Amino acid sequence: MEKTLTHHAPVITPAQLLEHWQGHRNLTRRVIEAFPEKDFFEFSIGGMRPCAALVQELLAIAVPGLRQLATGETEELNEHLKHDQSKARLLALWDEATVELNRLWVLIPEEKFQQKVITFGQYEGTVWSSIFYFIDNEIHHRGQAYVYLRALGIEPPPFWER
Amino acid sequence: MEKTLTHHAPVITPAQLLEHWQGHRNLTRRVIEAFPEKDFFEFSIGGMRPCAALVQELLAIAVPGLRQLATGETEELNEHLKHDQSKARLLALWDEATVELNRLWVLIPEEKFQQKVITFGQYEGTVWSSIFYFIDNEIHHRGQAYVYLRALGIEPPPFWER
Repeated sequence: MEKTLTHHAPVITPAQLLEHWQGHRNLTRRVIEAFPEKDFFEFSIGGMRPCAALVQELLAIAVPGLRQLATGETEELNEHLKHDQSKARLLALWDEATVELNRLWVLIPEEKFQQKVITFGQYEGTVWSSIFYFIDNEIHHRGQAYVYLRALGIEPPPFWER
Repeated sequence: MEKTLTHHAPVITPAQLLEHWQGHRNLTRRVIEAFPEKDFFEFSIGGMRPCAALVQELLAIAVPGLRQLATGETEELNEHLKHDQSKARLLALWDEATVELNRLWVLIPEEKFQQKVITFGQYEGTVWSSIFYFIDNEIHHRGQAYVYLRALGIEPPPFWER
């Protein structure tokens, strides 16, 4: 019995992991807002993609990725969203995703996080490692967007504010 | 009883979280290796710190931060390590930290991850959120180092290889 009881103190609960992710997404939203419209779609360094393309990747991963984890149906990776070259349109898509992630999250029962999954039909992992990858990939690209902003002479929002 | 049993399937175990962190640290090590010696200490964009300073910050956080989580003794943040302007010296410090993190990790009992802590005497959180911050901060700065490498015409190691 003692052994079982220690499991009442998990490293992290599903609700905490969702809040952690949405905190990061909130910061990413403020990074998007900090870009001048034109630079958001055009500015780049060293042949990398502009911030808009990075954000499209994040949107292509978050909801479709989590939907597969919640429903078990394989999703396709589609990074070509209709955004009409408008930051406001991408921010609206971002906010729609925020609501949809909250809705999908509660469909994932706790015992599923350790299960194996192949996201987008090609990336092997577990449910937890896939979600961590989605979050880590967002932090990674947002870190790059911070350099773009600094290169443009714009102060990015503080990393620790979520 | 049923309710207790579901806790046998945690979101992530302590061992998995350590492996996840060390996987990221392994990638960061390869990013450090990819820099030419001079650029590692000098190259920067938009007035940001060069990669060597970012790596010093990561070293200042990882072992002292985890030591506090393991022992409960408040650590000071010291980002001025003796590295003799040598990438090999910083890589040696990185490898020492890898071993020390593994040693400290097993001193943290599972039930401690949800406990409150103030790391470095100033950052409020829980044990898990502090560790997540250490990892996220590394991903954030490494993402910036990727832009430096691209700007230098150097292909960084793939983000998904750990």
